[in-house]
Amino acid sequence: MKVGIIGLGLMGGSFALALKRKFKQRDERLEIIGIDHNDQHCLEALELKITDKITDDITDLLELDLIVLTIPVNGILKILPELKNASDKTTIIDFGSTKEKIVQAIPQEIRKNFVAAHPMAGTEKSGPTAADRKLYRGKVVVLCNTEDNDPKHLKFAKNVFRDIGMKIFYMNAKDHDKHAAYISHMPHAVSYALSNSVMKQENPKAVLALAGGGFKDMSRIAKSAPAMWIDIFKQNKTNLLSATKSLKKEIETFENLVENEEWEELSKWILKANELHNIL
Amino acid sequence: MKVGIIGLGLMGGSFALALKRKFKQRDERLEIIGIDHNDQHCLEALELKITDKITDDITDLLELDLIVLTIPVNGILKILPELKNASDKTTIIDFGSTKEKIVQAIPQEIRKNFVAAHPMAGTEKSGPTAADRKLYRGKVVVLCNTEDNDPKHLKFAKNVFRDIGMKIFYMNAKDHDKHAAYISHMPHAVSYALSNSVMKQENPKAVLALAGGGFKDMSRIAKSAPAMWIDIFKQNKTNLLSATKSLKKEIETFENLVENEEWEELSKWILKANELHNIL
Repeated sequence: MKVGIIGLGLMGGSFALALKRKFKQRDERLEIIGIDHNDQHCLEALELKITDKITDDITDLLELDLIVLTIPVNGILKILPELKNASDKTTIIDFGSTKEKIVQAIPQEIRKNFVAAHPMAGTEKSGPTAADRKLYRGKVVVLCNTEDNDPKHLKFAKNVFRDIGMKIFYMNAKDHDKHAAYISHMPHAVSYALSNSVMKQENPKAVLALAGGGFKDMSRIAKSAPAMWIDIFKQNKTNLLSATKSLKKEIETFENLVENEEWEELSKWILKANELHNIL
Repeated sequence: MKVGIIGLGLMGGSFALALKRKFKQRDERLEIIGIDHNDQHCLEALELKITDKITDDITDLLELDLIVLTIPVNGILKILPELKNASDKTTIIDFGSTKEKIVQAIPQEIRKNFVAAHPMAGTEKSGPTAADRKLYRGKVVVLCNTEDNDPKHLKFAKNVFRDIGMKIFYMNAKDHDKHAAYISHMPHAVSYALSNSVMKQENPKAVLALAGGGFKDMSRIAKSAPAMWIDIFKQNKTNLLSATKSLKKEIETFENLVENEEWEELSKWILKANELHNIL
């Protein structure tokens, strides 16, 4: 199999390492050609054997078996027109964290080839050196609007995701973006807000002394670099703002209960929050 | 050494298991006597060898080498007067998550014996069955207002915390509560708010599909039972409300930047949040 990976960071790098491992186990041939606008990342990706070759010409990928887009979502939107001459046989998958604007922008010529996916995996780290072949294992990938795919490309994409150990869910792109705003994008915004609020008030020594597991968990994703997240916030603006509004409302409910010392009601509110335990 | 543990849940149980392990390694004798108002917890604590004996009479503890208070903070406040006849030789340590009201309420008779401590460890679980002998290992314990302690009791307490693998920090109780509001109590409130906001909007299937590591981390402490946290919110009300206000302000900064599409400014705001990485 020949695979082109556009974007050799955490997501692309981890994908490559996972796939290489699988193909090695099966003793099958796999060649990966990488593209990244960051020269340092290209060098690192070659050294880490994430990619076998580097190119800066996207047309080198258009006849491969698979093209994977693992760049921030606005980058995906920009690059889509350049993929419209891809072969009928090439399956294309994007890993973007928002889906509605991407599915709208897929050129008609490659709509049947193009599987819109959101792997629910990641860390606060970035770049090829953060790549981890176990990143996707056991995690969920959401495939969107698969009714627009040619069954053979869909099947191919599903096999690739199963090869790297993922569980497959299906969702409409519009619903995906609404849900993702609440379950992924808003929590990231809140983690950034938490970090900024603590850093403004607290001295580093107090943070170090008092940061227990709770704070460490809540602030981990506040270490995520802006590039990817600015794009996500841009593309999912409306859903995101409705989610932060809903969160603020819950915080205000909490504040009012504490302010008015309504401990019984506060206990009920906490018990409702505890119900998450039944799901996750 | 003879130790009385008041409260045989996650904190008391984990403390007992850690100390037992250490004493076994050193081939020293350790006897633990436990008190818990929950009969089921008493039975479980005996079965799990967290405690060697159970009593319901606090006077049974007043001549021991060490008394540890591992109950919610309002429980500590209530029980303090019953400890005032403890022996001069008995070191008393509380594990409460707020410190100012506790240090104010320590009876004068035992002020020199009483080491006010906040171990920065815990999980969202509770009860003796959640006890874990590694819970405290490598974590920080904050000791407050140690200038009020007899040096021999302070030394004894410090040795106990070192025995269970903790790193010791010192802080004024008033400062502790202010810092803890930002770094521990407010984040818990936010995690509850996040859980409630998501549970209201989302169906369980979508949560399950889309919950990546970020959401799981942010919502883990939303599973914490109300008993302990209501007490903390009560005792640290003023600091807590100032912390939630500061967080809401940061969320509003975020919302305004997204609303007005000020991506450059948003990027700077995120980079500031990323600086947490330099501390933690």
